Amino acid sequence: MPGFLFMSFIATPQSMHFEEALPLQSGASIRDYVLAYETYGTLNAERSNAVLVCHALNASHHVAGVYEGQPRSEGWWDNMIGPGKPVDTNRFFVIGVNNLGSCFGSTGPMHTHPDTGEVYGADFPVVTVEDWVNAQARLLDRLGITQLAAVLGGSLGGMQALGWTLQYPDRMRHAVVVASAPNLTAENIAFNEVARRAIVTDPDFHGGHFYRHGVIPQRGLRIARMIGHITYLSDDVMNEKFGRQLREGLTPKYSTQDIEFQIESYLRYQGDKFSEYFDANTYLLITRALDYFDPALQYGGSLTQALARATAKFLLISFTTDWRFSPQRSREIVKALLDNRRRVSYAEIDAPHGHDAFLLDDPRYMDTMRSYFDSIAKEVHA
Amino acid sequence: MPGFLFMSFIATPQSMHFEEALPLQSGASIRDYVLAYETYGTLNAERSNAVLVCHALNASHHVAGVYEGQPRSEGWWDNMIGPGKPVDTNRFFVIGVNNLGSCFGSTGPMHTHPDTGEVYGADFPVVTVEDWVNAQARLLDRLGITQLAAVLGGSLGGMQALGWTLQYPDRMRHAVVVASAPNLTAENIAFNEVARRAIVTDPDFHGGHFYRHGVIPQRGLRIARMIGHITYLSDDVMNEKFGRQLREGLTPKYSTQDIEFQIESYLRYQGDKFSEYFDANTYLLITRALDYFDPALQYGGSLTQALARATAKFLLISFTTDWRFSPQRSREIVKALLDNRRRVSYAEIDAPHGHDAFLLDDPRYMDTMRSYFDSIAKEVHA
Repeated sequence: MPGFLFMSFIATPQSMHFEEALPLQSGASIRDYVLAYETYGTLNAERSNAVLVCHALNASHHVAGVYEGQPRSEGWWDNMIGPGKPVDTNRFFVIGVNNLGSCFGSTGPMHTHPDTGEVYGADFPVVTVEDWVNAQARLLDRLGITQLAAVLGGSLGGMQALGWTLQYPDRMRHAVVVASAPNLTAENIAFNEVARRAIVTDPDFHGGHFYRHGVIPQRGLRIARMIGHITYLSDDVMNEKFGRQLREGLTPKYSTQDIEFQIESYLRYQGDKFSEYFDANTYLLITRALDYFDPALQYGGSLTQALARATAKFLLISFTTDWRFSPQRSREIVKALLDNRRRVSYAEIDAPHGHDAFLLDDPRYMDTMRSYFDSIAKEVHA
Repeated sequence: MPGFLFMSFIATPQSMHFEEALPLQSGASIRDYVLAYETYGTLNAERSNAVLVCHALNASHHVAGVYEGQPRSEGWWDNMIGPGKPVDTNRFFVIGVNNLGSCFGSTGPMHTHPDTGEVYGADFPVVTVEDWVNAQARLLDRLGITQLAAVLGGSLGGMQALGWTLQYPDRMRHAVVVASAPNLTAENIAFNEVARRAIVTDPDFHGGHFYRHGVIPQRGLRIARMIGHITYLSDDVMNEKFGRQLREGLTPKYSTQDIEFQIESYLRYQGDKFSEYFDANTYLLITRALDYFDPALQYGGSLTQALARATAKFLLISFTTDWRFSPQRSREIVKALLDNRRRVSYAEIDAPHGHDAFLLDDPRYMDTMRSYFDSIAKEVHA
């Protein structure tokens, strides 16, 4: 009965409060914070079947399933995770956690600073991938999970999975790193910086304390999202989806400010939607976490030396048309792991969709994930 | 005496007034306008050695030489054009012309509308590559030049050279189209659109009539320029020039708003500089001209059919790391010309610098241009 097996299940958001201060990489710390999370499936008696899913820029702990009474509220990786899906929640206990600094439930810039009683805003401390990993480890402590079967993530989520292998090598068996990179290139940082400047220079940003002014820097958020969207898609898929199609009729209207081309309409729509729900300070924090991630930095740039601590078994996946985190970047990780004689599987999927491919239903991608997680399930008796 | 031969010469800007209305592709027209231009070298007795140079987004009629008393005011293609240079002004009479709608001398949005007595601002008519070509042809009429030895341009300038071959096939012998494309891809349009939105949504834009308010939409211009700069460079050259270098020290300061990485410093500097001299309405007009250019449109998308009218001999040049106007786009033009049995030379230069390469001193590029223009010189007895 595949129709039944693949139906969306009901997900229930939970949250955990942490009183004790979490020391951050910057030297600052954060206390009295909350992490929002969801779990799917059942932790087995051996506590060996837990899989942690780390999210990327615009996502949350709501990884799979739908919320009660909201049939269109599928989690962001609902095609990948659930009963009978590649990461099968009939076998695994899957944990989605929202990162610190987010605007989707965990403590972030929109919340109140316990020291001042004021909304954090721009005073929310800078958080890094390493900080998120530490916060996730604390959550697992509370959930009574000593060792994860796997940590799984795409893009920025993949960086967290990689971070886990370095910070908590004994607490995990497998790292699944999809469409990710060992650090950002100058071009990646450049795109992040333009997006941040668009937000920070929006007069409604007020130095990050816009909440007090009852405004939102929507102009900046729109621009940031439009830039992001361009980098998520491949040139080819943009040409295929939109090409040079005009929005109306066959001849242009000759206007510099009105929409002429379909691609403009699409980008404006994406920007508008995003600016209505995403927090500007969160955008700055998350893009900075991306910029800073660079495990090789303290090893003079040697990724091989940096990954010597990693003892997990790895699956890396990249997509040929992903120019944001190109296959070349995944291959750097593969090489550094092989230099350390680690067990690595690597799949380079020939997909047209650019970086976005990691969220889409490519059968080769899905099959690769399914068979890898099948083998993990056997290993951990899930 | 190469030292003498290669010294910069003095350039003198000129301008020509046109009273008669120029009909535009949009259906509008423009009258009482001025074109700024410069000429270098001497028109020979046969009037056969004239070369028209068309400019791209951020350039002007000041193509080569320096202005009197301003030793650092080299024209934007001074490495290519001048006495003894690849396009040798000892042999050719070179004409640089500033396009309508620009902010560097020709009539543009900052000037007064003759009908209203008000500054044009957003009311400046939308101009296209085809309109620019028509305006350039009128200037040549006035200069008494019936047939050009060549029309030469890079990027958007290359589109004008291509436009010339279709609109005035009898008035030119050669088209030299560098780092260009037969039209923009969806991704190209997308980048233009984000830049335009950054400008148009800057509160200081005032619908394009900011001059009346005594302000300039500098925030938007900065963002637009930063986006542009990312697309001009290759990922490789960015990594080589900036990589992940921090601006100060070896460890980050952990800030979302301050500059951390060298690439950020570079981009902000470029954005700041640009916002001080470039007109926002001009930016909109020029990016729209790029978007609209598509000679194949009226031939159901067939570039081969569109280029059937072109009788010029062609040199096309592209650069391997140019992802804005990739070699693939130049090859499309080459193919369409060969389909029409036209004479085409094509050079794909293996250069690391991305789109910017067309302005730089790659010896293979310079040699290709030099030998092509040498052969033109012989052909026209220059």
